[in-house]
Amino acid sequence: MASAALPEISKPKIVDGPGGYVLEDVPHLTDYIPDLPTYPNPLQDNPAYSVVKQYFVHVDDSVPQKVVVHKDDPKGIHFRRAGARQKVYFQSDDVHACIVTCGGLCPGLNTVVREIVCGLHHMYGVKKVLGIDGGYKGFYAKNTELDPEGGYKGFYAKNTVYLNPKVVNDIHKRGGTILGTSRGGHDTSKIVDSIQDRGINQVYIIGGDGTQRGAALIFEEIRRRGLKVSVAGIPKTIDNDIPVIDKSFGFDTAVEEAQRAINAAHVESESFENCIGLVKLMGRYSGFIAMYATLASRDVDCCLIPESPFYLEGPGGLFEYIEKRLKEDGHMVIVIAEGAGQELLSQSIQSTTDASGNKLLQDVGLWISQSIKDHFSKQKMPINLKYIDPTYMIRAVPSNASDNVYCTLLAQSAVHGAMAGYTGFTSGLVNGRHTYIPFNRIIEKQNKVVITDRMWARLLSSTNQPSFLRPSTNLLSKENGSQKRLDKKVTH
Amino acid sequence: MASAALPEISKPKIVDGPGGYVLEDVPHLTDYIPDLPTYPNPLQDNPAYSVVKQYFVHVDDSVPQKVVVHKDDPKGIHFRRAGARQKVYFQSDDVHACIVTCGGLCPGLNTVVREIVCGLHHMYGVKKVLGIDGGYKGFYAKNTELDPEGGYKGFYAKNTVYLNPKVVNDIHKRGGTILGTSRGGHDTSKIVDSIQDRGINQVYIIGGDGTQRGAALIFEEIRRRGLKVSVAGIPKTIDNDIPVIDKSFGFDTAVEEAQRAINAAHVESESFENCIGLVKLMGRYSGFIAMYATLASRDVDCCLIPESPFYLEGPGGLFEYIEKRLKEDGHMVIVIAEGAGQELLSQSIQSTTDASGNKLLQDVGLWISQSIKDHFSKQKMPINLKYIDPTYMIRAVPSNASDNVYCTLLAQSAVHGAMAGYTGFTSGLVNGRHTYIPFNRIIEKQNKVVITDRMWARLLSSTNQPSFLRPSTNLLSKENGSQKRLDKKVTH
Amino acid sequence: MASAALPEISKPKIVDGPGGYVLEDVPHLTDYIPDLPTYPNPLQDNPAYSVVKQYFVHVDDSVPQKVVVHKDDPKGIHFRRAGARQKVYFQSDDVHACIVTCGGLCPGLNTVVREIVCGLHHMYGVKKVLGIDGGYKGFYAKNTELDPEGGYKGFYAKNTVYLNPKVVNDIHKRGGTILGTSRGGHDTSKIVDSIQDRGINQVYIIGGDGTQRGAALIFEEIRRRGLKVSVAGIPKTIDNDIPVIDKSFGFDTAVEEAQRAINAAHVESESFENCIGLVKLMGRYSGFIAMYATLASRDVDCCLIPESPFYLEGPGGLFEYIEKRLKEDGHMVIVIAEGAGQELLSQSIQSTTDASGNKLLQDVGLWISQSIKDHFSKQKMPINLKYIDPTYMIRAVPSNASDNVYCTLLAQSAVHGAMAGYTGFTSGLVNGRHTYIPFNRIIEKQNKVVITDRMWARLLSSTNQPSFLRPSTNLLSKENGSQKRLDKKVTH
Amino acid sequence: MASAALPEISKPKIVDGPGGYVLEDVPHLTDYIPDLPTYPNPLQDNPAYSVVKQYFVHVDDSVPQKVVVHKDDPKGIHFRRAGARQKVYFQSDDVHACIVTCGGLCPGLNTVVREIVCGLHHMYGVKKVLGIDGGYKGFYAKNTELDPEGGYKGFYAKNTVYLNPKVVNDIHKRGGTILGTSRGGHDTSKIVDSIQDRGINQVYIIGGDGTQRGAALIFEEIRRRGLKVSVAGIPKTIDNDIPVIDKSFGFDTAVEEAQRAINAAHVESESFENCIGLVKLMGRYSGFIAMYATLASRDVDCCLIPESPFYLEGPGGLFEYIEKRLKEDGHMVIVIAEGAGQELLSQSIQSTTDASGNKLLQDVGLWISQSIKDHFSKQKMPINLKYIDPTYMIRAVPSNASDNVYCTLLAQSAVHGAMAGYTGFTSGLVNGRHTYIPFNRIIEKQNKVVITDRMWARLLSSTNQPSFLRPSTNLLSKENGSQKRLDKKVTH
Repeated sequence: MASAALPEISKPKIVDGPGGYVLEDVPHLTDYIPDLPTYPNPLQDNPAYSVVKQYFVHVDDSVPQKVVVHKDDPKGIHFRRAGARQKVYFQSDDVHACIVTCGGLCPGLNTVVREIVCGLHHMYGVKKVLGIDGGYKGFYAKNTELDPEGGYKGFYAKNTVYLNPKVVNDIHKRGGTILGTSRGGHDTSKIVDSIQDRGINQVYIIGGDGTQRGAALIFEEIRRRGLKVSVAGIPKTIDNDIPVIDKSFGFDTAVEEAQRAINAAHVESESFENCIGLVKLMGRYSGFIAMYATLASRDVDCCLIPESPFYLEGPGGLFEYIEKRLKEDGHMVIVIAEGAGQELLSQSIQSTTDASGNKLLQDVGLWISQSIKDHFSKQKMPINLKYIDPTYMIRAVPSNASDNVYCTLLAQSAVHGAMAGYTGFTSGLVNGRHTYIPFNRIIEKQNKVVITDRMWARLLSSTNQPSFLRPSTNLLSKENGSQKRLDKKVTH
Repeated sequence: MASAALPEISKPKIVDGPGGYVLEDVPHLTDYIPDLPTYPNPLQDNPAYSVVKQYFVHVDDSVPQKVVVHKDDPKGIHFRRAGARQKVYFQSDDVHACIVTCGGLCPGLNTVVREIVCGLHHMYGVKKVLGIDGGYKGFYAKNTELDPEGGYKGFYAKNTVYLNPKVVNDIHKRGGTILGTSRGGHDTSKIVDSIQDRGINQVYIIGGDGTQRGAALIFEEIRRRGLKVSVAGIPKTIDNDIPVIDKSFGFDTAVEEAQRAINAAHVESESFENCIGLVKLMGRYSGFIAMYATLASRDVDCCLIPESPFYLEGPGGLFEYIEKRLKEDGHMVIVIAEGAGQELLSQSIQSTTDASGNKLLQDVGLWISQSIKDHFSKQKMPINLKYIDPTYMIRAVPSNASDNVYCTLLAQSAVHGAMAGYTGFTSGLVNGRHTYIPFNRIIEKQNKVVITDRMWARLLSSTNQPSFLRPSTNLLSKENGSQKRLDKKVTH
Repeated sequence: MASAALPEISKPKIVDGPGGYVLEDVPHLTDYIPDLPTYPNPLQDNPAYSVVKQYFVHVDDSVPQKVVVHKDDPKGIHFRRAGARQKVYFQSDDVHACIVTCGGLCPGLNTVVREIVCGLHHMYGVKKVLGIDGGYKGFYAKNTELDPEGGYKGFYAKNTVYLNPKVVNDIHKRGGTILGTSRGGHDTSKIVDSIQDRGINQVYIIGGDGTQRGAALIFEEIRRRGLKVSVAGIPKTIDNDIPVIDKSFGFDTAVEEAQRAINAAHVESESFENCIGLVKLMGRYSGFIAMYATLASRDVDCCLIPESPFYLEGPGGLFEYIEKRLKEDGHMVIVIAEGAGQELLSQSIQSTTDASGNKLLQDVGLWISQSIKDHFSKQKMPINLKYIDPTYMIRAVPSNASDNVYCTLLAQSAVHGAMAGYTGFTSGLVNGRHTYIPFNRIIEKQNKVVITDRMWARLLSSTNQPSFLRPSTNLLSKENGSQKRLDKKVTH
Repeated sequence: MASAALPEISKPKIVDGPGGYVLEDVPHLTDYIPDLPTYPNPLQDNPAYSVVKQYFVHVDDSVPQKVVVHKDDPKGIHFRRAGARQKVYFQSDDVHACIVTCGGLCPGLNTVVREIVCGLHHMYGVKKVLGIDGGYKGFYAKNTELDPEGGYKGFYAKNTVYLNPKVVNDIHKRGGTILGTSRGGHDTSKIVDSIQDRGINQVYIIGGDGTQRGAALIFEEIRRRGLKVSVAGIPKTIDNDIPVIDKSFGFDTAVEEAQRAINAAHVESESFENCIGLVKLMGRYSGFIAMYATLASRDVDCCLIPESPFYLEGPGGLFEYIEKRLKEDGHMVIVIAEGAGQELLSQSIQSTTDASGNKLLQDVGLWISQSIKDHFSKQKMPINLKYIDPTYMIRAVPSNASDNVYCTLLAQSAVHGAMAGYTGFTSGLVNGRHTYIPFNRIIEKQNKVVITDRMWARLLSSTNQPSFLRPSTNLLSKENGSQKRLDKKVTH
């Protein structure tokens, strides 16, 4: 990762108002380029919008971060409301936009891409939209390794593709991303060089927290170079681990699709004696998918997430609970998030030696399956364990109707924001309203299940599982439900 | 319907605070029964909840109705936040709850029933929960017509069933309602007599705006009689036409399922020459399902809803638009909400005479199909029209994962509210938070698509359909998007 | 339709063998063009096939029509087995194939199109495959009506499209037909003119019995003109009403999809008092879909099909049975095939006068719904009736896996047959083996449910419905389960 | 397993006829119990069947095993046609039937159970049908280990359940088996003791080839003891590895469900650079699911099955093919049956030492994933590999409509056969007709994909994969497509 020493980071824009009102505003091109001309929003002449009296967002519209309030509370932090503005800072013919998708797959990626293209085209008459192929590195990478003779069709043909409404017409019915994606590959200066070389002036970056962190760096570099380029992020995380926003797109679809695996585990476990159906779900740092899938299914007896530590042996441990359930019911279903039990797992792996097996055991699902089998084998209690890992089957489905609408609005909000000259922002849903959130608020920490809050209590109540907390555990230290991660590197 | 003259209607409870803060509070049993004893909430001893420091809702927690604000705005209207309270007004052994489902089917009904039963049982130790069979009239009706000998198994056996977690265990995986339902049948005094006779002290009423209006009357009568009975409503409307709340349960599932029909219409229309795929969707007074299904699908060329008047003949009319689309693309997809074009339809029907055909033509889908065919037949332009009415296939599916979680929280909120002594309230989601809303706010008007707001503009933009507004139309008069319906009768 | 007087119809090719063996063979180009050269089958050099010792079909391979036999039975009628031959009658570079799809939609149409294209391309190296647009009339129609200026892109561009593996790569995942389809439009001499003009020498015709009848006329005309053109039919009928073959493609998918509608009817009917869930399914002359959907679902109380007459009023009639079921169970599900009860319906319609309503009542589902409502309204017995017509939602789905494999083999069989010089044949599955069947056997009668056979008895046993046979009915006269239809016109 | 030395095995019943006709008949109770009385079939008085003239199967009806014939061929082997007989050997009130399900899950198990119960009940008026819990060992096992105090509810209550149409009404809509199942546990004498003790006289055994082998032993022991007990097998094998029959129930559903995993692999592989989507499917000894899923999907680039050996390294090996595909297309999809490559795998495992990892690597999917990653890591070619194992998600789904009908007919055939006094038979579909097959034909060998036959050639042609045959491979020695397995133990 480049830019070890950033000479000047843009300062957060904080606007205060009466009654404790605070607006955490997003940057604007005019913050560092004075005297930019403005143009009337072309939507004013669009027949679909012309009947809509209240179409344009009022310049003062904002949305509070906190909606559970007391009557004496100050008004608190607000974000700028997303939507079309009366004045825009780009002429349609001058816009040269690009879109990039980074990180793992998530239902809805293609819908977001489609709607940025269609939004720019239909609402603003923008014709030049470039798709960057294969994530951040698509900005600059040449495929020289695989194609030494250089005959491959050349740089542009390989790594980018021009997008228009016809090309993207049906892509929302397919899973994956037509642009291709990859992890890592962020190189701020090469990326900004590429943006500058190509004359791109709107950059739409779809990806998770690492990607948004990269987007922030790109914005800072662009600002430092004084370029008239808007940088807009659309947060993508199937794990729902991005803070501030209500939920990430694709999350509903993922929870829905996870039901299939849980149902299968339920059917298997009920058909065999002493049978455990075990399902691993996504969630490296946050157990939201596991928690919501468990709440939605109501067939789960135990849900293990990264936020809630557990242990295997002894009183109050997992093995004891499994034994209890099997003796009482003859079967059980366990859901485990991929990031759960990492400490246990890393202890365990250090004691094995073989490389291949070792690698396999780094998968928490395989590891805990083996641990459970080993335990009950030692106990001479015959059990059946059926392990299901539906991860790729969940990630690869097209988004459902609700996520399709959500993706559409996220994409349109990003387009309105970029056209209006905002930059360095993420398009996000806050308390049911679309807003522009400054990058720093998205990347400063991760959204996590708060195990001292009522949603986790509901889950415990629905599964009847023990809390797996040893008497000494002090929950208070984790109470805010997220941790500062200032030291985390931009790796994807 | 009884009670023509209500001598005393309970007055709205309005609490003011600083900065323009207003709390529209819900009634409480102590409003009319003084000196009721309280008990500690049994959740305090529940292992699942005991680790949750912040589990109980603070007495001052409230949620604003309006979240798009300006910095100088007053704080405005708030609703009381839903959730468990430290003190409850019922002892678990004394609770005798009943549940009734009224009106048409909606995905999620069984989940709400299941979670009221499980919530009462697991969270509060309540054992006596009665299911009322077949809607409001199940409170009092005897099946004497069909069973003159009286041998039928008797009153209780037929019309009610005791519910416990085992009985309701798998019902959330099925569509419909295990309790049965019906329209109408509201008779306030018979119902309250039945409640009183049976010793019921918590009434959970699941139904649409007519049903909630009936629930309000039941609450008023109970209050007048001075009974210690909590009345809690759970709003059910597949059309999403209930005001104040973010959306109704089952709505996401319905929009999802509607995609199947739209896809089929799209495939049919593309396979034949000059082919129109026509889909009728639910929505008697509100076009939300049609609008969201159209936005989610992106295969629709024209969406007709009750809120947006249209006309068939002449310039700017529907026929002209159809002809244009067929000539340009060779096919098109139309989505029509069942309540769209009612004025046109009633004019048309008055000119026909045959009873059976007349009745069929009252179905807007059949009527408009016939009208389109007749028009192009007169024009000598051969067309194909494929009409799909998926209504019952949509209503009857089980709720998806997202609605399952939503139904669970709605049900648990209602249970917490009733246990805490609140009454005359509806459990509803406001700006993403669960709240208690006084009946009067739910029933005073219907939620409608505001055709001067941006969501409808988005739809027009996505379909490219004309606005179908004649030059003279004055949109301003409908601008608030809902109409007073004080005169509407309680019919279901 | 042309050619009222066919001077010479090709005579059936019947080959006799020992033990009562009879081969009903298909025509071959050499029947009317002597001394055609042959070429080695290019599959011999295909790496995929070269390891397969038994790949080529033995010239004597045949499949019996009847497989339930007695030990003394003669061997009976056989059909020629489908598959690749050692010698072919076309050189790959000389082949110019065309494909046309006719009639209504059916799951699997696109798979058949795809596999003809891919089979010709990958197995035989054929590069020229033309798709005819919009059914039979696509062979000759110009779009002059809609496009008087002639600027439309011209004849070829509009009505035909060249197909290759890339174009058809993903089409099997979509419903409908990418070629477009239409009913009627058969004009033998114009079609054969077009075939001759374009130099087409292999014609693949996908359609129902009317279409196959048209294909037979095209074959006869081609034979009369002495053209070296193979005509191969692929039978398409979602109703399964084509004789000889085991079942038609798309049938399994249709029965599967029909379950959704039946499930919905079941859920609706159980949720309301005295509720009838009524589902109309496809089947103009044959009730196979209704019968198999009923057998597969096991939630149906009454199945009405064209082959089994029924009556409404009086003892043993439908109304009596409905009343019985409602009184006993409170709900019921009826499945009706679209061609059931045609006599009743036509009687009923003659007594109405209004045009629009009349037309609507020609739909048996709407008519019987209205009849049932009217009857019970007269009886003062309140009922609920929920009517579902899933026809277009069933037809438009993509084929399921089993139909995909079936379509693939049908298409490949047709390709092998045409390459081997066979013509005037239909590719069809007989007793689980792919065969070539002469057109005359496919079009002489319709396949029908035999209501004196055991499958219908199984259905009656599963629904417990009465046979609806009046005492006087003489079943023997219909015993063979199909009727001669020599007089039926080629209309689609 | 008991009965090491069977003194007398029942001899196959072979009946010869003219023209080379051979009937391989099934045993009958009268073979070893003379003078058994017969009774008229109660179906004669069933209103559903009384109209069906041809309902009863003619005593001479048989079905040939081979339907591809030459005109001079002898008639060959036939099987007895299944179906109701005029005379039965049991009076309804005397029947005491039992049903057991053994081995792994398969879609349709519950439908078979349901239809045996409903068939016996509705067709023959049989009231006593016992479900044996948890497979073969449910006949005799007591749960004393888990329940030392004996308070568990006792032997009968735990291990068996009485079944009637109401109990099984909805079970066909659920996956799994309501009876429970297990592998192994066959103990002939304990089982026959239990049958004799309980007075059971019809035994329905649902399971795979091992289970049918056990059923054959049970039949022999019953015959030796001279008991009037019919033993009927229903073949269950999701792998389709049972010979003689057309296909096993649940197979279609499994292939359908496998498409989801293949689709996901396809989407994943297309979204990342150099990405391999790898799907493991069922098939320990037979690759039918992998082959049909590949043929149905048409997105697969390589299909590996047990019948077709392959190798990894060097020219013509798997790694070379993968590298080629990635360089040409950038992505590929591999389907591997669980039994493929066993020799490679066992070699590989011998060289590892760690127990847990070693166990994991016995899973061919995990092993080959690791092998591919290791290979390309050594090659310094970065790849992505997404591995999906949908096994349990496939097994646990309910059967689709086509399998539901198939299961119904299999179950009814078994019931008719047992009532008619046949025993020692399997109910099976042969060339599209239901037949009774003697046990010895079902268990003598396994059904396997014949890699020298045309279906495998079709697959190779559709994937374009190499044959992976080393020059020295002699296919002729495996040509019959199945191997004698006389030495295989009865283990499940």
